[in-house]
This record gives sequence, C-alpha cells and structure tokens, in this order.
Amino acid sequence: MCSSKAAPKFKQLRQTYGFDEVAIVPGDVTLNPDQTNTDFRIGDFTFSIPFIASAMDSVVDVKMAIQINKLGGLGVLNIDGIQARYENPDEVLEKIAGASSAEVTALMQKVYKEPIKDNLIGDRVSAIKKAGAVCAIAVIPANTKRFAPIIEEAGGDILVIQTTVTSARHISKSYRGLNIAEMVEQTKMPIVVGNCVSYSGCLELMRTGIAGVLVGVGPGAACTSREVLGIGVPQITATIDCAAARDEYYRESGKYIPIITDGGLRKGGDICKSFAAGTDAVMIGSPIAQTKEAPGRGYHWGMANPHPALPRGTRIKVGTNTTLEKLLFGPTSIVHGTENFVGALRTAMGFCGAATIQEMHNAEMVIAPSISTEGKIYQMTQGV
Amino acid sequence: MCSSKAAPKFKQLRQTYGFDEVAIVPGDVTLNPDQTNTDFRIGDFTFSIPFIASAMDSVVDVKMAIQINKLGGLGVLNIDGIQARYENPDEVLEKIAGASSAEVTALMQKVYKEPIKDNLIGDRVSAIKKAGAVCAIAVIPANTKRFAPIIEEAGGDILVIQTTVTSARHISKSYRGLNIAEMVEQTKMPIVVGNCVSYSGCLELMRTGIAGVLVGVGPGAACTSREVLGIGVPQITATIDCAAARDEYYRESGKYIPIITDGGLRKGGDICKSFAAGTDAVMIGSPIAQTKEAPGRGYHWGMANPHPALPRGTRIKVGTNTTLEKLLFGPTSIVHGTENFVGALRTAMGFCGAATIQEMHNAEMVIAPSISTEGKIYQMTQGV
Amino acid sequence: MCSSKAAPKFKQLRQTYGFDEVAIVPGDVTLNPDQTNTDFRIGDFTFSIPFIASAMDSVVDVKMAIQINKLGGLGVLNIDGIQARYENPDEVLEKIAGASSAEVTALMQKVYKEPIKDNLIGDRVSAIKKAGAVCAIAVIPANTKRFAPIIEEAGGDILVIQTTVTSARHISKSYRGLNIAEMVEQTKMPIVVGNCVSYSGCLELMRTGIAGVLVGVGPGAACTSREVLGIGVPQITATIDCAAARDEYYRESGKYIPIITDGGLRKGGDICKSFAAGTDAVMIGSPIAQTKEAPGRGYHWGMANPHPALPRGTRIKVGTNTTLEKLLFGPTSIVHGTENFVGALRTAMGFCGAATIQEMHNAEMVIAPSISTEGKIYQMTQGV
Amino acid sequence: MCSSKAAPKFKQLRQTYGFDEVAIVPGDVTLNPDQTNTDFRIGDFTFSIPFIASAMDSVVDVKMAIQINKLGGLGVLNIDGIQARYENPDEVLEKIAGASSAEVTALMQKVYKEPIKDNLIGDRVSAIKKAGAVCAIAVIPANTKRFAPIIEEAGGDILVIQTTVTSARHISKSYRGLNIAEMVEQTKMPIVVGNCVSYSGCLELMRTGIAGVLVGVGPGAACTSREVLGIGVPQITATIDCAAARDEYYRESGKYIPIITDGGLRKGGDICKSFAAGTDAVMIGSPIAQTKEAPGRGYHWGMANPHPALPRGTRIKVGTNTTLEKLLFGPTSIVHGTENFVGALRTAMGFCGAATIQEMHNAEMVIAPSISTEGKIYQMTQGV
Repeated sequence: MCSSKAAPKFKQLRQTYGFDEVAIVPGDVTLNPDQTNTDFRIGDFTFSIPFIASAMDSVVDVKMAIQINKLGGLGVLNIDGIQARYENPDEVLEKIAGASSAEVTALMQKVYKEPIKDNLIGDRVSAIKKAGAVCAIAVIPANTKRFAPIIEEAGGDILVIQTTVTSARHISKSYRGLNIAEMVEQTKMPIVVGNCVSYSGCLELMRTGIAGVLVGVGPGAACTSREVLGIGVPQITATIDCAAARDEYYRESGKYIPIITDGGLRKGGDICKSFAAGTDAVMIGSPIAQTKEAPGRGYHWGMANPHPALPRGTRIKVGTNTTLEKLLFGPTSIVHGTENFVGALRTAMGFCGAATIQEMHNAEMVIAPSISTEGKIYQMTQGV
Repeated sequence: MCSSKAAPKFKQLRQTYGFDEVAIVPGDVTLNPDQTNTDFRIGDFTFSIPFIASAMDSVVDVKMAIQINKLGGLGVLNIDGIQARYENPDEVLEKIAGASSAEVTALMQKVYKEPIKDNLIGDRVSAIKKAGAVCAIAVIPANTKRFAPIIEEAGGDILVIQTTVTSARHISKSYRGLNIAEMVEQTKMPIVVGNCVSYSGCLELMRTGIAGVLVGVGPGAACTSREVLGIGVPQITATIDCAAARDEYYRESGKYIPIITDGGLRKGGDICKSFAAGTDAVMIGSPIAQTKEAPGRGYHWGMANPHPALPRGTRIKVGTNTTLEKLLFGPTSIVHGTENFVGALRTAMGFCGAATIQEMHNAEMVIAPSISTEGKIYQMTQGV
Repeated sequence: MCSSKAAPKFKQLRQTYGFDEVAIVPGDVTLNPDQTNTDFRIGDFTFSIPFIASAMDSVVDVKMAIQINKLGGLGVLNIDGIQARYENPDEVLEKIAGASSAEVTALMQKVYKEPIKDNLIGDRVSAIKKAGAVCAIAVIPANTKRFAPIIEEAGGDILVIQTTVTSARHISKSYRGLNIAEMVEQTKMPIVVGNCVSYSGCLELMRTGIAGVLVGVGPGAACTSREVLGIGVPQITATIDCAAARDEYYRESGKYIPIITDGGLRKGGDICKSFAAGTDAVMIGSPIAQTKEAPGRGYHWGMANPHPALPRGTRIKVGTNTTLEKLLFGPTSIVHGTENFVGALRTAMGFCGAATIQEMHNAEMVIAPSISTEGKIYQMTQGV
Repeated sequence: MCSSKAAPKFKQLRQTYGFDEVAIVPGDVTLNPDQTNTDFRIGDFTFSIPFIASAMDSVVDVKMAIQINKLGGLGVLNIDGIQARYENPDEVLEKIAGASSAEVTALMQKVYKEPIKDNLIGDRVSAIKKAGAVCAIAVIPANTKRFAPIIEEAGGDILVIQTTVTSARHISKSYRGLNIAEMVEQTKMPIVVGNCVSYSGCLELMRTGIAGVLVGVGPGAACTSREVLGIGVPQITATIDCAAARDEYYRESGKYIPIITDGGLRKGGDICKSFAAGTDAVMIGSPIAQTKEAPGRGYHWGMANPHPALPRGTRIKVGTNTTLEKLLFGPTSIVHGTENFVGALRTAMGFCGAATIQEMHNAEMVIAPSISTEGKIYQMTQGV
C-alpha cells in the first residue's frame, strides 16, 4: 500500500446485467392492478401508457403512428428510412418481405441508397397530424439541421435524433458536428436523443436541454452490433446507469427528463424489469413488428442493417401473430408473456405495491436467471 | 468519500441462488439414516414427514388429501379450484386432460369462471374429516372472509391463505383488504399464509400471528410468472431469507413459526437443499401430479393458468409414472432422484450428521452447479 | 455495526469450482517435460506415476490391479463388489454388460445381494501378490473390522476404507461405529480413507493416523448423488480445501499425508488441474473402464448404483476404445485429451516449470471456462 | 485476525475473461470513422493496419506474406512447418486437404517428421523480399540459434520466436536453453517472442530487449491445449495483464514494446475488444485460413497438431468463403462480423472517440455476455 514502487495498473471491468440475469422481488405492500397509473410525459405531451414504437421501417408507418397513439402510446416515424425515400413505401416493403434470405441484405443496401425527399417528409407529418395523433419523427444526427425545420414547419410535435451511439460531442470532418444545445434553441419541438448507455454520456446529453433520452446500444433482436463491433451494454445496467444520471440531473436542475429503454424487449417480464431498473417508458420494435398492422409484413430488420460496407443487423422472420391491441392490452391465452404488456406491467406494479411508474423505480431487483439453462435448452429443443 | 458533491446513486442488485446453483457439503460427523427424525409441526398438528401436497387441482382432491395424510404428510385442497365449483370435479378433470395444447388455456379460462358453491366446500371438508385425515383448505385472500367460517364450521383443521404474492398489507378498492391479524383472531384454525420471498415480508406476516408461511414466487414447473411479469426469487435465496425472518421472529416472540418452501422442487436433491437452506417442510406439486393417484390424470397446471386476461402457467404433460408411496418412500430403481424423497432426505441428513430437520438447517451449502452445462446439454440431447 | 439490535443472520454460501471452471496459467520459468518427476508415495510404497484405478467393479479386477502396477501406478480391488461375492466374477460381469438399460439397475440390485465370502477375499489378494504387484483392497466402513484381518493375513499391502462420505466420527446404532484410529493401531497396512471434501473433515481424518485421503463426493461420471441427495462439492475446490488440510497437518505433525482426487476426471486437462489444485495423485474410473483390459466390458457403473432402495448411479456405455498403456503413456492421435495422461501431465508440468508434483502445487490457476458455452454446444451437436 | 494460530492457506483463484464475456462501452465523445488512424509499429517497421497473419501452414505461405503486406498488414512464415521442409509445399498441402478426418492427424504426424532444409529457408525469405514485402519468419526456440543467422543472411526483416508457451527462462537438458537476451545482441532483426499470458512473464520477456510479444495460450480455434493440458488464459485477461506489463516496462525504460493478441479471434467484435483490452495488434489465423488465397485450401490446423505423442490441435474445415481484401476491408453483406475487420475497428474506434490505437486502449469495457445463452443456443440449432 505504501510501497515506493507503483503497483501495475490493470484495466478494471465491472459486471453488467441484461433482462435474463435479473428478477423483481415482490413488495411488502401489494396493490390491486386497477389502482395503478402508468402515465408518462415527454415535454408537454402526456401518454397514458409508457410504450413507444421504434423508429424502424418494419415497425412504424403513418398508420401505425396513428393507431398506437389512439391506444395511449406513441409511434416514431423514421425519415431516414423508406417512408421519406419513396412515394409509395408499401411497394418497397413488399419487395423486402418477398426477398430470400440470401439476397435481402444486398437488396436493402440498394433500397436505402435512394435519396430522402423533402416533400415526402412533409407529407408523412401532415398525414399523422390530420388524423389527430401526436407526431414524432426520427432523424439521424447528420441530417438533423437540414430536416428539422421541414418537420417543424409541417407540424411535427416531437423530434427524435437517433443513431447507434449519440454523444453530446461528436467530431467529424465531413459535416460540422451537430450541436444539440443549439438545435434545442432553434426548434420548439421537444427533442429526444439517443442512443446512449452510460451515466456520464446521459448526463451530458441532458445538460444540452433535451426532453428525453433513448437508452440502449446493441441489445435489439435485429441488431448484431456486439458481434460486429464488440460494442453494447446489457439493458438493465444501461437503464440503471442512465436513471442515476436522470436523478442527478433532476437534483442539479429541478427538471425531470425521462429516459426510455430501447431495444431487446421481447416479453412482459423484460418490460417490467426495465421499469424496476428505472426507465420512464419503453421503446419496442420486434413485438410490434409481429402485429398484423405492422408495415414489416411479418419481417423485422434494424436500421443499421442496410449499411453499405458494414451491415450490422439481420432481417428476422417474426410472423404476424397478434394485433396491436392484444399485444398491449390482451386478453390473451398465451402464457409466455408475449401479449398483454400493459396488463403485465400493471400486475407487476401491484405485486410491488407501486401506484405509479416512479414508485415502480423503487422495486427491489435481484440477480437471478429468469429460468435455468436446463429449462431454456428444454424449451428450445421442444419448440415451446 | 468526504467529497462535498454527492456520488450518483445506482440501484444495487444482490445475487440470488436456485436449486441448480448450490450443493450441500457433507458434515464432519455422519449418522446412519435410520437415526434421523423428520417430524414437522403446524400449530398443534405433527406430521412424521415434512411433505405437503400443493393446493392445485392437478395435485390434490379429497382422495389425495386422505392418502398423503395416512402416509405422514399433508395435502391442501384448493376451494378456489374445480373441487368447490363442480359437483362432479372428475368430469371436468377428464375434459382438461383430454383437451389439445392449442385449446387448453381457453378451456381452463372458461372452466374456472363457474362460481364456487358454499355447499361444495362443506362437502369436501366433511369427506376428508370422515376418513380421519387432517383437513387443510386453501383460499385466496379476496375470498377468505366469506369462506373461512364455512370451512371452520365444516370441521376444517388448517386454513391456507394463498395467492401468487401475499403481503401483510394489501391495498384494494374492489374489496376491503383482508386483515390477516383480524382473521387470526376470528378463527381457531391455524393459518398458513403465502407466498412470500423476502425477509421483511415474511417477518411482517409472522407478526400477524399466523402459524406458517409458504415461501416461493415464480419457481414452479407450471408457472411462467417470471417470463410474464419479471417477478420471482430463486428458491434457495428465498428460503434462506425467510428462515432468517423465522429465526428473528423466534428471538423476538419465543414462537417458532415454520416456513414451507413451495414450488420448483422436482428431485430429491432440490428437497434436501431446501432443508439445508432452512425450510421446515416442502410443498410439492409436479412430482405428486405424476403419481397414478393424482387428480391431474398425467397433467399438471398452475392456479394462475386460467387467469382470464393474463394467464401465467402452462399445462404440462407429466405422465403417471409412479405411486404416491414409491414417490415418498421408494424403493426405486430410478437413479435421478425422482423417487424415494423421504429416503433421500434421511440419507442426506445422515451425510450431514443431522438428527432432526432443525439440525439439517446447519448443514453447510456452497455455490456450485449441480452438474456442468456440458452434462446438462448432453442429458437433454440424449433424452436421459 | 455497533447497533443494539442484532442484524438478521442469513446463511452464507461460498463459491466453489469444478474442472470446467478453471485453467492453469503457464509459469515464468518453463522446463522440458523429460526433466519432470511424477513420483508419488503411500506409506512406504512409491509409485512412478500418480495414477490409481478406482475401486469399482467395472474398473479393477485381479488382472487390472497387476497390470497398472507394472506400469507404475496402483489399482484398488473392491471386496464389497462382485470379486468377493462370486467365485467366477466374469460370468456376472458378462450378465451386467448384456443387460438392457431398462433392466440393469434391478439386475444389479439383485447381483449385489449375494454375500461376500471370506475365502474369496483371500484368493483375490493372493492372486495379486503372486504376480508381484502391490495389493490395495477397498472395504466399506461397516465391514472393515471383519475383513481387515483377512486381507492383512492374505498379504494385502494397502487398506482403503471407502464410502460415499466418510467422517472420522460416524454415529450408528446398527453396528458400533468404526473407530479409524483404533483400526490404524490394529493393522500394519497403511490405510487410505475416503471420501471427504472439506478442510475440517480431512484434517480430522488425518489426525487418526491414516496414510492417505480420497477427495471427492458426487463428481464421478457414474454418480448421481447430487441429483438424488443434493450433496457434492466440485473437485477443484474440494482438492484445494483438502490440500490446505494436508499442509496444516504437516505443519502440526511433520507428517506428509497424500491426498488423492477421486472422481470426475475424464481428460488430461482435468488431471493437470487437479495437481495444480494440490493433489498428490488422482484416482480414475471411467477412463480406465474404457480400456480393452477393463473388467466392465465397455460399461461403467458406480458402487452406489446397486443400492436396494435409493440407487445413485448409472451404468454408462463407455466402449473399449483404447488400451491401458495408450491411455497412460500414448502415443496418441486423439486431440481432445482422452489419451496419454502421463504425457499430458509432464507437458503441463514443463509449461509451469514444475520439476515435481509438489512444485506443480504452486502453479497459478484462474477461474475460466475451458471452452465457451458456444464451443461446447457446438461440439455436442456436431458429435465432436 | 490476531490469533496466535495461523489460518489455513487456501489456494486463491482470480476471475478471467474471454471475448464472449465482455463488451465495449461507447464513449462520451464520438468520432467519424474516417478520422481514425490504425498505424502499428514493430521496431522501425510501420504497418497501416494492425493485422498480422498467423505463423501457421494453413494461413501463410510466400504468396500470402506478400499480399497481406501490400494491404498494409504483415504475414509471418513459419519455417518449422511445411514451407521449409518441402521443396514443393503445395503438393503436401493438397494431401492434407484431401485426407479424411480419421487419417489426418496420423498423416500430419508423418508429414512434419521431414527435416527442415537450410536452403529452403533462404529461398522462402528471398521470394518474399524480391516482391518488396516485409519478411517476418517464425522459428521455435530450440531451432533459433541454428536458423536465425540463415534468415538474417537471406534478408529477413523480423524474427518471430514462437512456441505454445515461451518464458525468458527455459530449462532443458536436451539443448542449451535459448538465451533470448543473447539472441537480441546477435541479430539486427527486431525479435517478436511468444506466446505468453501473464504480467510477470511478459515483463521478463520485454526486459531481454525484444521488439514485441505475442499474447495468448490456448484460445485458438484449432487448439485444444486446454482440454489436453488444462493450460490457457482467456484472451481479454491475458491482453489486459500483458498491456499492464508493457506500460510498466515503458515507465521503467522509456521504450514502448507492442503486444499482439494472438489466437481465438473470429469476429470483428473479438478484434475490437482486444484493442480495448490494450493490444497493439492482432494475429489472426482461422479468419485468414478462410480466404480463397490461403494455403490451407479451406482447412485450418494448429502447429501443435502434428505433435508425435500428444497432438493438441484439430484440422478444422473452414471453407473458402471470402477474399483477403474483403476480409480486411469489405464491403460486405454479412451481418455477423466475419468480414470487413478494418471497417469494424474504425467504426468501434469512432463510437469510443478514439483517434488512435493508443486512445482505443482507454475505452471502457464491461463484463457482459455478447449474446444470451438463449440466443446462442437458438443460433446453433437454427444454423444461423
């Protein structure tokens, strides 16, 4: 300890946890599910259920954005995708659904080379607003300065700036780095930014004045970032860390900026654990891609999939086994947690004695495999 | 440490353990199995073997309640199930056994909508008492006030108040929350309550004056609570924590209230580990559902399975491979621990030098996979 | 800490490790394998290779005991098995090899009911001695007083007292507990006792004056004690703990009593890790059962398997793929470590710079899966 | 603590980590990939990409050594292999590729008995130099004194002294131990030595005056050292420990000696994690064996495979699915990280805000399975 010779310095690694490694402990007080409140806010917008549909071409088109908002949640339309590249996106979606596994990545690499059209951005925003729904639009950082004014002018409500990893400080020579704080000044739309996974990264983003943070790098069903790049943090730890940043920012500023766990959520259990870890809402992709109403036509793929030189996502066949309403509210006869997400959340909140999402953040969580390896292998081989 | 700036607060998770993650260490003193005593008490009732059959429709009917008590244990009849809803429960059990996997959840959702009849409760209690057996009856909290007097009047011996999670303080607007302490005052029957999994929750329950606590949320073979809700604590940790609560309550009150590990026990090894973790008895479901005498006719299902909107259990085909007597006392030619549970318990107690269940609580236990992943995968793929 | 209220006491579990969870770190000095010495001693007997064949009917008969000693190791004949129950054991071994999986446990339960004959004990000992080999005979504790004098009189060299768990203090009413210290007084044969797995249990055994300790409960390929009873400690931790007891006993008495890791060793890597964990020799069963010379005829089973009421072992088909000499000394074309055990040990000692077994005890070991789950599953499904 | 009796000493094991157990955390600053620099130096040689082809017969022949250097990396030719034993190595490589699995180990044991010819060493070096490429040649320690002068005279640029485990102090009676410090004096070629895995072993090697250290024992795809010998350290921990040795040596000497993670790297994620763990370059075998240009003709095997008595490697069928250029630079349509390694490295550096390899050493890394067991088993059984 007091040796004159410095000890060698070894890189330290801390343990992280994903959905499968943790479980929620029921509370000492319990509550009837019908007495729970699941409200969630972004800026001045309040949503009665904390569920946001992912800004992915297989998940949200104009119709989905309208429908999920009618049910109490929010859908985010991605203008970096097919919707703003093609006058008739359904034609292109049909092609992707019809392609073989061998040809689909190459096809998508081609499809996503088509330029984004300014007029289509306006059209999509208007269509959503005309239906009376809250309109949230996603852009990538490099396109934000160019498209944000178009979105705002067309009546967009919420701006989502999203890429695999978004930091408050990005260095680039090909375009002047997006200054998020400046963007906050220039638009009236509340801005949600992501994705991020660390305490310090999240805190820096919040200090730019934004209205929400998307949490999650690498965990999605359609994402292979961890295989390709080695990058990613399991969602429970990412959520815990960003929740700590949110609470710290609240202490220093008095402003409560929601965080949204995004990616890798497949079952009711994953969703309930995200809230116990501290999230304010969840963004879900593959479960919604499985609804009959989804634009993906039974397929799901990531937005990093069509990268021309280094694709990092897979098109997955997910089928169309449910409807959006059953997915969110049930009733269901499925016993494995893939339907009635809101019912599951309210029931879990009841078992934890949590009347609100904020109270659910206080639920105890433990490290525990959800089911044993034995059970998993059994289920796999039996097709359960 | 003494920094003026508060450190960020990250949610802390502690490690928990299930049956597969631990093993018992043999003692420095050993004992012949025939010198062990396995007595177990609830209130003034003593049982020569600490085995209780689960309050599930596939496990306990009137006949099973009688038979297991004759063998030294106890069976709990669930009046929230088929037995008190139908004059002729065997007819309904046949239907469930005969349904296909695709239709069974919907069928059960329908079957369990039939109202519970007061007169059938009395009939079931009388039938058990007439045979000279100890009669234990399970009710859900919402029905306790209404049915407890009927059970007591009909001669019931032990009242079990059971639901997925039971806390000493439940908040509800649809019915006035059950006050367990009041219920203890109003009935002469010793009351066993559950399920619970935490030190504080168990201690609160014990302070209401009850006679036993059921331990376990989410681990059962027929239960998918952890997938659907994310809720559940592995049984070894749940048992250790509730045993600490029992010991603490004994220190403060002088009363020894038994705990009963309930759910997920499939093999002799699981049972022996539960006792080493501190339990006073085990409640077993699926192993008894496999006996020729079980009402489930080779099937097993959870009582949360028929939930109308959010079912959390599966009907599992378990077969009818053994008899109750062989299951409990052997002899057996099966080498994987699925028969002769009492023999296994006495042998393990002998290897640990434990003459009584209380002494078995002192056996050392270590964290150790019961068999390697390699071995498990091998067994799975070979159908061993 | 100084609170007036006592903190609740939770049972503590420590982590343990098996072969698959650890790996040896090469040393900062390396050594040519031909400069290593693998000598091992029990009492006054020295063996040039630290390999002992298990006291199991599928592993050691008179011929095997002779042959392995000629190659430098030791074989232990079990007189609690077929060899001392039947005039012509080969006939019985043929029957077991010919039985179907369904009938074999019941057959063995019957075969092992035949009484042990005193004259056959003498015959087996004489046959081994006549061939000039060191004769080691295993007995169970309950039979030791009766058979030890017969073994000694017939010329036995080493007495092995072995059962699943052996403690220095066993309590029994059916026979007066074997007092090991007295037995040490009454015989000139060095006594090896087992099995044990803990520091304190091993130290107590050593203080009785014995000449060796067998280490291992529950890990063998033919053993299901952990499933049936929940009892067992992974071999690396058991070996580390008993090695600490041996070193402690050496400090207090000046006597170096060897420990022998027994059970679960299947590959060269397992063997090398046992020595790095601190063992002085290894006892191997299933690898020898696979040799053409083994009495098991391509099958292997545990001695707890024929237990009349609670069998805890499986007859495994192991085939006859090698010879004893190839198994121990190679050369081999197999790349997965199942042949040339002595070559593997000398090579590993060289990589660790260990000239003797005692120096190998100082090799660094780390916690590390030997191959990834992915690799294991791959190998399983490919039949590698 | 202050007890007069010494506490027993138990061997301590520390936790180690491999590629699958860790993940990289993105940085708080991000950077465009085109602004990253991946330069790497050995002695006075600078390479624009930190990728070295393994000194294995299935990976590097004269043509591969030339081609990879033209693309910015380095190939190491092993003169302990076929190239310096046979005038026409392609003939022998054809034979190995054509052999059945059953006969291949025996065939290789024979093929590698052919003596190494001095004149062939010169020929191979000249051929590489004539093409204008940097020429790196690998020898085993026992052959270094004899062959190093031949290599140098023929114009070799870099000498690689490599065997499974290389220590600065090797004890042997069959040949006088190689003194690495003396060898450094006797040749002008910078010397790279390996393999090693520990802080102390690496530091000792650096103090001999060498120019690089190869890191890794036991992790390669074609290596079964851990099964056969139990020896090996997972690559992330080995890299972290040797990086600490490099930094310590830099502090004490002012000289920056690069370390090179060698073995087990299969995907872009593995490579990126190695750099985050602290490596300066990676040596890759099986991925290059999969290129159409590789000498292995769709097969890959380890150099310990042909060991005459104790082979520790497997010939693996890897196919010829890509080209060297696509492997290193893409573009690719494969989404699982097996192509475009340089693109993956630059992208990961960008997400971590690292402009150079040295800055990438500061990226945060966490303990986290890359994908869940569930996912892995799923992928295995689906053939993804």
